[in-house]
Amino acid sequence: MTTETTATQMAREIAEQPEALRATLDALLPRRGEIRDRLAGRRSVLFAARGSSDNAAIYGRYLLETHAGVLGGLVSPSVATHYRGRLDLSDAVVVGVSQSGRTSEIVETLAWARSCGALTVAVTNDAGSELATSADLALTTNAGTELAVPATKSYLTQVAAMTVLGTALGPDDAALDAALVDVPDRVAAVLADADRLDPVVEQLSRGASIVTGRGLMMGTALEVALKLEETCARPVRGYSYADLRHGPISAVQEGVTAVLVGAADGPVHDAMIELADDLRTRGAITVAVGGSPELAAACDLGTGPLDVTERLAPLVAVVPMQIVIERLARHLGLDPDEPRGLSKITRTDIPTQEDT
Amino acid sequence: MTTETTATQMAREIAEQPEALRATLDALLPRRGEIRDRLAGRRSVLFAARGSSDNAAIYGRYLLETHAGVLGGLVSPSVATHYRGRLDLSDAVVVGVSQSGRTSEIVETLAWARSCGALTVAVTNDAGSELATSADLALTTNAGTELAVPATKSYLTQVAAMTVLGTALGPDDAALDAALVDVPDRVAAVLADADRLDPVVEQLSRGASIVTGRGLMMGTALEVALKLEETCARPVRGYSYADLRHGPISAVQEGVTAVLVGAADGPVHDAMIELADDLRTRGAITVAVGGSPELAAACDLGTGPLDVTERLAPLVAVVPMQIVIERLARHLGLDPDEPRGLSKITRTDIPTQEDT
Repeated sequence: MTTETTATQMAREIAEQPEALRATLDALLPRRGEIRDRLAGRRSVLFAARGSSDNAAIYGRYLLETHAGVLGGLVSPSVATHYRGRLDLSDAVVVGVSQSGRTSEIVETLAWARSCGALTVAVTNDAGSELATSADLALTTNAGTELAVPATKSYLTQVAAMTVLGTALGPDDAALDAALVDVPDRVAAVLADADRLDPVVEQLSRGASIVTGRGLMMGTALEVALKLEETCARPVRGYSYADLRHGPISAVQEGVTAVLVGAADGPVHDAMIELADDLRTRGAITVAVGGSPELAAACDLGTGPLDVTERLAPLVAVVPMQIVIERLARHLGLDPDEPRGLSKITRTDIPTQEDT
Repeated sequence: MTTETTATQMAREIAEQPEALRATLDALLPRRGEIRDRLAGRRSVLFAARGSSDNAAIYGRYLLETHAGVLGGLVSPSVATHYRGRLDLSDAVVVGVSQSGRTSEIVETLAWARSCGALTVAVTNDAGSELATSADLALTTNAGTELAVPATKSYLTQVAAMTVLGTALGPDDAALDAALVDVPDRVAAVLADADRLDPVVEQLSRGASIVTGRGLMMGTALEVALKLEETCARPVRGYSYADLRHGPISAVQEGVTAVLVGAADGPVHDAMIELADDLRTRGAITVAVGGSPELAAACDLGTGPLDVTERLAPLVAVVPMQIVIERLARHLGLDPDEPRGLSKITRTDIPTQEDT
């Protein structure tokens, strides 16, 4: 890593992730019994979030549906905040995800959900925030203060909170739990081997990119796309595997960089390799993020395979791309800590201060 | 319109939309009582679709939640087709949307939904298709045969089927019904006044674009983005209003063309005007699609305001952009009927023939 004196805030926060993950898992894993009890009898779990928090929620939804057998979904905040829809949510849990716990759109959506009968859960990085104190159940991440505008450690600890939620409602799985406790060390190993990522930085500096993933890795793919776009001001499109195949693949041509976010195993693994072959045939330069040695071999370059099972891969696979994006921003002469036109205090509608 | 001898198939099918809409509404509106009875007692309506069909479903979801007070959602097909998730869908309706009714991913997802206890509905353009014949309830659009690869009349009649579904489950509203019956004539009026769209074609030929919308118009915005991308091979990003504001707006700079898809009224109307002002301040050239005279005035150019209420605006607002996209493709030397790398027979995974 770059030395402390020259490191950006974003680079420091990326490096703090093993510790942030450990602190978050230590706090939340013992609460799985409580989570299971409180959510008992509710038939669906719906998430309300924006930006990086939404990308964490997308993983949460897939984990609930594929591992815990619980129907998941994403709330459309405008139905709450603008249309004031009257829905019966009496058999639903609505989970608001917001690093600050002060994003007014999400605070308002959770209040609306409660008024519609939902049990409400807050995933925030601040136990004293309005979102956390107003929810029926507050799950607090221990990322520590995040100062860089691009969310890194706050995102990754939100993903960890999703893992806790999904495994709380799923079957007991000692092997999965053991692998989960090992995740902070896996992240540390990625951080220790960052210089291998320079060819990826170089390739992404060349222009138009797409990012794709599927199933449990879809949220990670969207997070990589969002971070590339907002931190590096690059036009980047994030697609689900199948949506890409269904139409936009026609715009993939010679010289496009295609980032494929994969896992080491799982039922969509082989399809990602087939997609890599197809994208290369169309002239794209393919970059494997995470995934198996087979995916790495099918791509032109990559961040290195990760031997982490698919259900936990979103806790690790984003990290090499965070490093790439921070380096790419500096390479492009941008300040990764303060992307053009954005601030840590963002807003969607209401002209008061709110955070991610 | 271009004369018949030189018109593309896509242009002909765009022009056939008033008739296709009329035939579809004539067939489906009388079935609203039956739809209401069959879906009674189910607490949520989830859609399974890809591409343009998915964009129609997004409107369907918003209409259900904002007009009918019914919880909507989108199924993740990979949970069905790859992860084989076991979910309890016994209080849900799952609606498969596919023009051909032969998209194997959607056929498979609907079969999975039935095995999970869902009541199944098929929205197709072929009453004899596997999707239609296997569903508990089949709603057939009357678009006629569609030959051009980009879906136009099949998409618009799917949107009409969504209106029928949403109004079947919503409160009786005679004024809304009267406006709905009038929609084919509104579409015909747009078609008759197509030459006013040439400045929009010219502007969109200049390069990178984003498309944004919100709430009931979100599906239309995504459809415009998808069509631009797949028909004109342009890098185009479709964003929800709030997601755009939350981060990617940092990539909006001088010269970007920003297409704002709006309605004449509704609770997100004012926010779209505020967004237009913001995007212009950042140097974007703004294009209003549909919307009110106020939205048109807030943008640099546009397709002309449409005096259609928000709940029905998705049945009309996409039409001028279909015309623009067909003309832009020809302007760029492309064949709109056969976009590069795509065919009417698409596939996502399974190597058998399947349609949109």
